[in-house]
Amino acid sequence: MKFILAPDSFKECMTAHQATLAMEAGLRRVFPTAEIIAIPMADGGEGTVDALTTITQGQLIEHSVTDPLGRPIQASFGLSADRSTAFIEVAAASGLPLLSPAERNPLIASSYGTGQQILAALDYGVSKLVIGLGGSATNDGGQGIAAALGATFYDRDERQIFPQGGAALTAIHRVDLSHCDPRLQQVEITLASDVTNTLTGKQGASAIFGPQKGATPEMVEQLDNALANYGRCLELVSGKEVTTLPGSGAAGGIGATLLALSQATLQPGIELVMQYANFEQALVGADAVLTGEGAIDNQTLYGKTPYGVAKAVRTVSRQIPVIALAGKVASDIDALYQHGFTAIFAINPQAQSLAEALATGPQNLTQTVENVARLLNIAAVE
Amino acid sequence: MKFILAPDSFKECMTAHQATLAMEAGLRRVFPTAEIIAIPMADGGEGTVDALTTITQGQLIEHSVTDPLGRPIQASFGLSADRSTAFIEVAAASGLPLLSPAERNPLIASSYGTGQQILAALDYGVSKLVIGLGGSATNDGGQGIAAALGATFYDRDERQIFPQGGAALTAIHRVDLSHCDPRLQQVEITLASDVTNTLTGKQGASAIFGPQKGATPEMVEQLDNALANYGRCLELVSGKEVTTLPGSGAAGGIGATLLALSQATLQPGIELVMQYANFEQALVGADAVLTGEGAIDNQTLYGKTPYGVAKAVRTVSRQIPVIALAGKVASDIDALYQHGFTAIFAINPQAQSLAEALATGPQNLTQTVENVARLLNIAAVE
Repeated sequence: MKFILAPDSFKECMTAHQATLAMEAGLRRVFPTAEIIAIPMADGGEGTVDALTTITQGQLIEHSVTDPLGRPIQASFGLSADRSTAFIEVAAASGLPLLSPAERNPLIASSYGTGQQILAALDYGVSKLVIGLGGSATNDGGQGIAAALGATFYDRDERQIFPQGGAALTAIHRVDLSHCDPRLQQVEITLASDVTNTLTGKQGASAIFGPQKGATPEMVEQLDNALANYGRCLELVSGKEVTTLPGSGAAGGIGATLLALSQATLQPGIELVMQYANFEQALVGADAVLTGEGAIDNQTLYGKTPYGVAKAVRTVSRQIPVIALAGKVASDIDALYQHGFTAIFAINPQAQSLAEALATGPQNLTQTVENVARLLNIAAVE
Repeated sequence: MKFILAPDSFKECMTAHQATLAMEAGLRRVFPTAEIIAIPMADGGEGTVDALTTITQGQLIEHSVTDPLGRPIQASFGLSADRSTAFIEVAAASGLPLLSPAERNPLIASSYGTGQQILAALDYGVSKLVIGLGGSATNDGGQGIAAALGATFYDRDERQIFPQGGAALTAIHRVDLSHCDPRLQQVEITLASDVTNTLTGKQGASAIFGPQKGATPEMVEQLDNALANYGRCLELVSGKEVTTLPGSGAAGGIGATLLALSQATLQPGIELVMQYANFEQALVGADAVLTGEGAIDNQTLYGKTPYGVAKAVRTVSRQIPVIALAGKVASDIDALYQHGFTAIFAINPQAQSLAEALATGPQNLTQTVENVARLLNIAAVE
């Protein structure tokens, strides 16, 4: 028997890597000698660095950066075992979870810390950078990143504008890229993101993602105008139409800056992770694929990892069962069975509080997978 | 495909019959044309009448009786569609759930109401009586039943002793069976019980079951002496050694009275239910058996219904998968896999309170069974 384990993280409970370990333990109870390929998955958001670092057998590099409000924090990025590639998540240094709800304010939150991470990664001599764009607390168009990488910004009176969040972008009149780190032109940069939103407008970064970062309707308008001004300045200096490029609105506009400053390309996070994991190749001869996530519901079909896994498996084979495990399984999931999922199981062994469920998640996942394996064993024997 | 559904009730959530309906709904989503045989199971305790009445396509007959403390209540027994057999549960008229915890007192609780049910059943002209002995609140040796059926009891001074619970048995000096209902000798009586305890002694009714009915250690001694006296009187008048017969201690000694007054035989409840359901015959050609109960844990192997189902299936076939579903699945269930269970799934779709779990039990069972069926479908296709 050959199994592929491709779960996302179970939020607040297990990383994707931990989920593969729990799944493997359950399978081993029934198929002790099976070939089991563990591929921790991610969709470009939280957990992407962890997954890619595990897949490339790399290590996490922790260093000191500033958080969205300029306070010093420790943040990590991943370095592949062959040191060719660094994996960075915007969420690590510029993420929403770094701020308390009261602190969330996209007018002043800056992506500067993520720029520091990019610099640190370049110092390791990598030739490839993968940057996951999910989960940012910022709406600064990536100006913080640009500043950290050497770009300078000036107002009408040629006074320098420092990276101080989205509101400050309004005053920018000129951008100077001449002092940007030259290595940005030499490395291959891939932005992991499913977001196709543009920098500004009704489907822009401020309107769509601003509110969840703490923006009031008034702030959204202010931020949208600020990004429009920033985008114009970037277009002038880079010659690229970054304001209207699909994906330029990702991560509060970080997409726009990285597309302007480098030859970055965008790729859906899950595709990127699958590519690094040689997912299609791993599927050859597989008897079943196990995936999963904290919750499986009618949102799963909108780009969540288990759906990406099911889709990828179905592209290769209609025969390989795709079995999803989750801490919470909604009742309105009939459509999932039409989109590649063979079966979907919740892992809760009893009525219990969320805290209890989270505390016992790994063992519950192991036990449920064991019983799924017991049913798969019927198929294997017949 | 052919499936056998043989769950017990899911306590406080679904009767066994309701559980079979929920299971069938899940199976039908995957196997719309499968042959599905629903056999609501029970182990002789609560739910036995419901299961047997459903199996024999009968009806419930409600009538007025007295509860263990002599208060009028409505209670039901089952009547098979062919009216040949009545199904009675001791719990219906003499059960612990009829009393509040403060009211529980085996010194005064009487089984008289169950005797009234037996009389009412005889009035329907049945030729067979099945009496489930689980769940009684009484420790009166069945004296209440005997009194309802026409037996009379006298003290040393030939004053009549009325059915007033366990304590009153001490005064009994003579039993007169001459006015007992003669139909008791004409019907076939089967006592559904797994209990092999004798009437008195360290493994007797008072010592083993008295405490859960509210008996203090002092009461247990008093009740044990009372039952010993009652048993002696019964043996004298019936010529049967009912004090030491295995099962005479069932249901607070009700076993002793029924064995003395009739040609009753004892049979484990689950065997009896399976016999009425032609369980072994139903298994022929089955692709899987689904069973279940409120909880599956290391107690399941001690005579619980799902274990009885697994054992019965394994007696017939090693190939038919036995899949258990439960509201709560313990983590220490490894031994179950060695005793006939193929796989065991909990039905909780998420972390939630017990009240929520109980309120959504049927739909959760349906959804889990649907996904089990999806995995079985792999086996069916391959």
